[in-house]
Amino acid sequence: MVAGAGFYVGPALARLLADRGHDLVLGDPDPALVEELMARGTEVEVVTGTDDLTDPASSQRLVQAALDRFGRVDSATAFSGQIITGRFLRTSASDYQKLFEGCMLAPYHFLQAVLPPMIAQGDGQVLVITSASAARATPGAPLYSSVRAGATHLVRNVADEVAHTGVQVNAVGTNFMDFPAFRKASGADDPEVRAKLEARVPLGRLGTMEEFAHFCGPFVDGSSRFTTGQFVAYAGGWA
Amino acid sequence: MVAGAGFYVGPALARLLADRGHDLVLGDPDPALVEELMARGTEVEVVTGTDDLTDPASSQRLVQAALDRFGRVDSATAFSGQIITGRFLRTSASDYQKLFEGCMLAPYHFLQAVLPPMIAQGDGQVLVITSASAARATPGAPLYSSVRAGATHLVRNVADEVAHTGVQVNAVGTNFMDFPAFRKASGADDPEVRAKLEARVPLGRLGTMEEFAHFCGPFVDGSSRFTTGQFVAYAGGWA
Repeated sequence: MVAGAGFYVGPALARLLADRGHDLVLGDPDPALVEELMARGTEVEVVTGTDDLTDPASSQRLVQAALDRFGRVDSATAFSGQIITGRFLRTSASDYQKLFEGCMLAPYHFLQAVLPPMIAQGDGQVLVITSASAARATPGAPLYSSVRAGATHLVRNVADEVAHTGVQVNAVGTNFMDFPAFRKASGADDPEVRAKLEARVPLGRLGTMEEFAHFCGPFVDGSSRFTTGQFVAYAGGWA
Repeated sequence: MVAGAGFYVGPALARLLADRGHDLVLGDPDPALVEELMARGTEVEVVTGTDDLTDPASSQRLVQAALDRFGRVDSATAFSGQIITGRFLRTSASDYQKLFEGCMLAPYHFLQAVLPPMIAQGDGQVLVITSASAARATPGAPLYSSVRAGATHLVRNVADEVAHTGVQVNAVGTNFMDFPAFRKASGADDPEVRAKLEARVPLGRLGTMEEFAHFCGPFVDGSSRFTTGQFVAYAGGWA
């Protein structure tokens, strides 16, 4: 299951899982992606209207669709992304509340929805995609960095609580990825701005969704079942 | 390049890289493994007598063999494994010295040997396999845990130093893996001892080398080039 299959790493991850022989439940995918996957022989269950994971019903509907169609959920990936920037002394408590909802409650609801069937199966892989800002101080985004760290640590704690059931729960967090929302927010569609941005990344460039999907692979494709509660930053060495 | 291809994750990682289309330089592999890989059409360069990575010549010979045969080194993996256990107050400084050599100097020499050609290429992936004990206090192995943490942090620092060259350097660390040396050291060849040991692992079992090789994949197979300086514990949730 890939929630948010229409943007960010969703399409690349869906393709990778399909290549590795998995059937898919996709939240709000692009119809062209679904057609492409089905043409390759992948069974695809589409659930629309689930983009807002702050609504608990979104994750519940995705899980129910998986159970109805396939009778189980082998792995589940979600990402969430409320971003509010600005120096700490200029922020408001309502900014922090919004970020809590977008970056902590959203994965909370996702975990609450996907874990029960996995625990019942005695088997499952959950990957929560947070942000590399969870792993370091992030100038200009102190509240955002804080809620990302909170979500990451929730994953660690939940992983520990459910490990004895055979369910893995891990987190990865990105920054400096090359996708439309990041390019728009950072101004990277302008080549000069992009060059300045890339100069801030130790590896000297933006990351692609295809390579990030490959990195996510062992956390969700069933090939590697013996680590849980980990967080890895995927951000060109920035974190 | 896989140093120590004859034991631990070496054979499984060599098979995985071969499956993904890579030619190989192997340090001290089992001849049967080499035959198997060559029968699949993989180009294999064998270097013998390099098991002891505390000797700087071992890593240098592996690198030279790669350059002589293939003209480059795309990725390089090494692990080291001096283990001395015992409560802190019963240890000696010479124990600590031996552990420093086996667990810190060995990866030091490996990094010193593999990085120059990668930096010259402007491209490369290094994976240093340390121990999950680097990530948490480890009762009964305080000195061992300490040198593993030292090596892990060396990797982080070196990664930061070379990131601008396009070379990635990451670390993963295991515990509770199912292989002969661990089973012998832990007594896990006895089913009763094994059951007690597995009860200490949150995921309730020992890990296999095949799944660990899959986890290592994106760090060394060229599919995912945008993270560096990371450490991930692969230990069934223990760390």
